[in-house]
Amino acid sequence: MFKRLCVIGTGLIGGSIARAARAQGLCEEIVAFGGREKNLPNLQLAQQLGVIDRFYTDMGQALAEADLVIVATPVGSMRNIFELIKPHWHPQALYSDAGSTKGSVVAAVEAAFGHVPNNFVPAHPIAGAERSGVDASQADLFKNRRLIITPLENTDRQFVEKLSNFWRQIGSSVSLMSVEHHDTVLAATSHLPHILAFTLVGLLGRKDEQREIFKYAAGGFKDFSRIASSDPTMWQDICLANKREIIPLIQQFKAELSHIEQLLTNDQAEQLFDTFTYARDARQRFLDTFDD
Amino acid sequence: MFKRLCVIGTGLIGGSIARAARAQGLCEEIVAFGGREKNLPNLQLAQQLGVIDRFYTDMGQALAEADLVIVATPVGSMRNIFELIKPHWHPQALYSDAGSTKGSVVAAVEAAFGHVPNNFVPAHPIAGAERSGVDASQADLFKNRRLIITPLENTDRQFVEKLSNFWRQIGSSVSLMSVEHHDTVLAATSHLPHILAFTLVGLLGRKDEQREIFKYAAGGFKDFSRIASSDPTMWQDICLANKREIIPLIQQFKAELSHIEQLLTNDQAEQLFDTFTYARDARQRFLDTFDD
Repeated sequence: MFKRLCVIGTGLIGGSIARAARAQGLCEEIVAFGGREKNLPNLQLAQQLGVIDRFYTDMGQALAEADLVIVATPVGSMRNIFELIKPHWHPQALYSDAGSTKGSVVAAVEAAFGHVPNNFVPAHPIAGAERSGVDASQADLFKNRRLIITPLENTDRQFVEKLSNFWRQIGSSVSLMSVEHHDTVLAATSHLPHILAFTLVGLLGRKDEQREIFKYAAGGFKDFSRIASSDPTMWQDICLANKREIIPLIQQFKAELSHIEQLLTNDQAEQLFDTFTYARDARQRFLDTFDD
Repeated sequence: MFKRLCVIGTGLIGGSIARAARAQGLCEEIVAFGGREKNLPNLQLAQQLGVIDRFYTDMGQALAEADLVIVATPVGSMRNIFELIKPHWHPQALYSDAGSTKGSVVAAVEAAFGHVPNNFVPAHPIAGAERSGVDASQADLFKNRRLIITPLENTDRQFVEKLSNFWRQIGSSVSLMSVEHHDTVLAATSHLPHILAFTLVGLLGRKDEQREIFKYAAGGFKDFSRIASSDPTMWQDICLANKREIIPLIQQFKAELSHIEQLLTNDQAEQLFDTFTYARDARQRFLDTFDD
């Protein structure tokens, strides 16, 4: 059990971590840090809802006596956050994050500290949600979901174990992998799909402005476009942070589209059928591995 | 009330039309046509389930005394179906279809008849479903969904009115538009999204074969990829039938992706934010018009 959990970033993910930790009795108290005035209403709401016990606008006070610190802000702000944390770093506390890209978070820590402290354990809960804000947070958001930890060579294995236990107790299935593998896999399964959804809905939105088309869209489009309702700030950060992996995937995707275009142009019905059949079977394979 | 509804193609759509017509008491009897041996088990199942009263492997018998005939086969087979229907055509009966592309269906009828008879009313129920087969059919599939009728200049308005009433009675909201407008709109809201989903899941499926990635995909991917579980035969037909509209959309989509790629390459965070924000707002506009 932790004495004090400090959550930095009390949105959907930070709020849900706090709720889950409280529900499972994993810490004595939960505090939050709020550096910017525009975040105060959200923090006040978090306190009113009982998600956190209290919050501080001073990082030193927020971190004092905290033995578990989780940074759950958009990945683009991590560098600044770690600069603020640095003067108050405690070698006995466990520091982690919930960022969707791991290479960029490790780089942010390295930039702030000159190295990556061995008590910082990079982590990423695979729990998607197009909603945002503490009012959307829920104690069971991570139940039956995966949590990926990407330890570095020097990361203290005791802290990795401690963090794994924390996440297991809030219902997650913990996997360990390298930073690079994480960023490659997530670019394919999450970042590229979000870009495709944003791009499609943007394209159709402009058409809809000229001549209404959305009213003739069906349930399939509703599901397909759901992730285009995700938070733009968060996704701007993720896309830039992992662009090294994402850009080649966009290029591969465009090449695949050109292939389909060619099959259509040449009326290659059989190849089109084979392409769609392979995809349908692949999705079945995905469904077979997905617990919901 | 119709005396005899004849459904040609007793899959998800044809089966659901039969169930809905029966549930609303819109016809005295419901028969089906089954031309190919491989379809017999499905027709036997449809009869066992009470979806249809009986089926015929002879088109003349299936159509005898039918005053409402709905063709709900994949659009690629329509030409053959209308060739089979032609010798048994009755000027007093109402003929319609449920094809997802309207230009190609009208062309198929024209090819079979030399012209489009004035008692053929092209129609398309906007009720997506990635399942297929009569066992997936349901009486309320079309409830609160749109039904688009694309009458031609010579189409008999009385038959248009009769068909509109039929669909309204099974719960649909009926819209009239031109064949061309239908095919333009549906290419954007349905055909392109299906191609994107098939393409993405195919690309990821091949990556998954080399190194498992699907196990790290989240709920967002599940929703996004749902339409990739659609019937490959049906979608091969739709894509080829409407390729004139689809190919330019694929090209536009590739151009949009190249734009995003450029923003990533140049670290244009603000433009990325604006692009994502526009898409998120457009999806909200879609949700506001979508009843579910």
